[in-house]
Amino acid sequence: MFEKYFSERIKNTPSSFIREILKVTQDPEIISFAGGLPNPISFPQEALKISMNRIADTYGAKIYQYSTTLGLDSLRQYIADRYNRIWGMDITIDNIIITTGSQQALDLIGKVFINDGDKVMVEKPSYLGLLQAFCMYKADFVQTKLNDDGLDIEDLKNTVKTYKPKAAYLIPNFQNPTGLTYTKENREKVFEVIKDEDMILIQDDPYGELRFEEGERIPYIGLNKSEKNLYLGSFSKIVTPGMRLGYIIGNSEIIKMLETAKQASDLHSNIFGQYLIADYLYNNDLDKHIEKIKTLYKKQAYTMVEAMEEFFPKDIKFTRPKGGMFTWVTLPEGMDVLKLFDKAIEKKVAFVPGHPFYVNPQKVNTLRLNYTNADAATIRTGIKRLADSIKEI
Amino acid sequence: MFEKYFSERIKNTPSSFIREILKVTQDPEIISFAGGLPNPISFPQEALKISMNRIADTYGAKIYQYSTTLGLDSLRQYIADRYNRIWGMDITIDNIIITTGSQQALDLIGKVFINDGDKVMVEKPSYLGLLQAFCMYKADFVQTKLNDDGLDIEDLKNTVKTYKPKAAYLIPNFQNPTGLTYTKENREKVFEVIKDEDMILIQDDPYGELRFEEGERIPYIGLNKSEKNLYLGSFSKIVTPGMRLGYIIGNSEIIKMLETAKQASDLHSNIFGQYLIADYLYNNDLDKHIEKIKTLYKKQAYTMVEAMEEFFPKDIKFTRPKGGMFTWVTLPEGMDVLKLFDKAIEKKVAFVPGHPFYVNPQKVNTLRLNYTNADAATIRTGIKRLADSIKEI
Repeated sequence: MFEKYFSERIKNTPSSFIREILKVTQDPEIISFAGGLPNPISFPQEALKISMNRIADTYGAKIYQYSTTLGLDSLRQYIADRYNRIWGMDITIDNIIITTGSQQALDLIGKVFINDGDKVMVEKPSYLGLLQAFCMYKADFVQTKLNDDGLDIEDLKNTVKTYKPKAAYLIPNFQNPTGLTYTKENREKVFEVIKDEDMILIQDDPYGELRFEEGERIPYIGLNKSEKNLYLGSFSKIVTPGMRLGYIIGNSEIIKMLETAKQASDLHSNIFGQYLIADYLYNNDLDKHIEKIKTLYKKQAYTMVEAMEEFFPKDIKFTRPKGGMFTWVTLPEGMDVLKLFDKAIEKKVAFVPGHPFYVNPQKVNTLRLNYTNADAATIRTGIKRLADSIKEI
Repeated sequence: MFEKYFSERIKNTPSSFIREILKVTQDPEIISFAGGLPNPISFPQEALKISMNRIADTYGAKIYQYSTTLGLDSLRQYIADRYNRIWGMDITIDNIIITTGSQQALDLIGKVFINDGDKVMVEKPSYLGLLQAFCMYKADFVQTKLNDDGLDIEDLKNTVKTYKPKAAYLIPNFQNPTGLTYTKENREKVFEVIKDEDMILIQDDPYGELRFEEGERIPYIGLNKSEKNLYLGSFSKIVTPGMRLGYIIGNSEIIKMLETAKQASDLHSNIFGQYLIADYLYNNDLDKHIEKIKTLYKKQAYTMVEAMEEFFPKDIKFTRPKGGMFTWVTLPEGMDVLKLFDKAIEKKVAFVPGHPFYVNPQKVNTLRLNYTNADAATIRTGIKRLADSIKEI
């Protein structure tokens, strides 16, 4: 009825595949690996309750009043201090804007940088939330192949040379949807290829803190070497996603433009949540809390990988994540993942078919599994059901 | 340095005039009528503290987890019930989407409806937040004259005939920036003019609950008569703006499109805040709370109007608001409000010059005054200073 009123951008947005899937998974008998929910253990509920009472007593009306677009100074200072300490950066609060979750960070970056038809390089596969957000600004995506060790350097060189992308969006740590992490060597090679290009490099890192396997943190691509780098972070996976608090770190001139875009988008992020998270962070040991999450996710990830090794036919490939929340399964060439999806639902197990992670999905034989929100026994049962489904199609 | 990377839309956004003004008003000696802050009395702090502890105890992890894009069912149900009761509507939660403040409502509507160059009708003057939001989607604004009783019907007819706007954005109650309210008769005439046009009518109503002068609520334009109507509401002025919670009411087909746009914008609004406000609303008497706010604002508004009558030269015109948060002053033709602004700052009083409320500001002789966030004595002193400034330029 309203077709003629709707904008071109919204009519061209791929209808949300995941939303349809999540509807199917409402059935309580279904074991769902489709979502991307952090385990509730990652919410420090008792400490947050102490913090909310403390900020109510300490700050009074301020936690309920309008506030500044860039975000609460003390929260931005915590982030600056943490990045300066961990990464040897030299940033101040002027390099940081608080966003209404990382999803808004993507929307604001789209607003500030993307003209109709601008080329944007993303991984193949990439995060569907980015594809949706930049679709609103009519970005023209080019996908670069992702290997086990990071971006395919030859493909990257070709992409850069052929399309001269204005921006690149990468998730170097425990990528969504694949769970893959770029090696240090790969990051250095990527930076060599792009460093002299006219390209904004967006590194989205919601999972970086969740490395559950031994090993050092690997520095970002071009860390401390490029003013064209933007770093995205979030409290969703390490404190709470419900507060919708993420942030962008970058050159202060870019942050100012993002501030203008944010003012037009929601004025500011909820200030109560900002006071709450800041109070929590300054009065608790975040790293100790993260250790608890990692211990749990490690067990769940290993259980899933072991179950896949035990039950899956040998021609099924899957990633072995060292952190984060997902693993990525590749079926034999020619096997139709949508057919598998139907069979799996019949057998009461759900996943996300690979489609929404590609720009032009065709004959997709990949799928994403999430392991953070089910216990070990459920994970084994679910993987067994999935293996049976594979064998029957 | 990054000029070449920035999008056309962000480069064309008027630099935020208000932000510059607010910087000037940091001086604690300045009496500022420039902001638009609700009085802290409007935040039911004690009740909210009880509610936050109750939701923490009752819902556990749910208040911290990811949630649905449309918003919390119980909060949407409260809104549906209230509108059905007050306005004789027949809406369900499917007609409602929760937004991250009303500013996000404007952003989402822009995303869903506005193609480059689409004509959008707004009042003259109009709310600057709308102008900023739709600027991002390259709307082409046409302004229709606003009189003391509402839209100028002849000007409206001409605008509609000449430009065939795709959408109109109106604030019928205690408008920002003028404080004016459309009469019942005017609303009926407006509806007669637009009802057969291909036009989405957006009625933004953040202040409607704040009628402090005797009189009935006046029904919205085309209430219960048009599927092309969208109604915007907010908890910012009656409970707390810091939580950033507003909503859009409309046809469910439009709400679904807004859901897609919101998913790409911030996934969902902070769910803790939604549980908190819902708990507050179901366990307290909102109307009784609103009475308290109205009593205060009435006194402040009358103090300001009386002071203007007493101190201002007779050729200065101003509106006499019956609710809301603002009054609008018109200087004699030819008097430059920016010159007055400089003089006023010298005399330690601040306001918002009319510029940001016009699409193409030229030779502006109007200004906005806010009265909700200063006590009566301060209001009198500030208006006296402003009157002195006027006399000296």
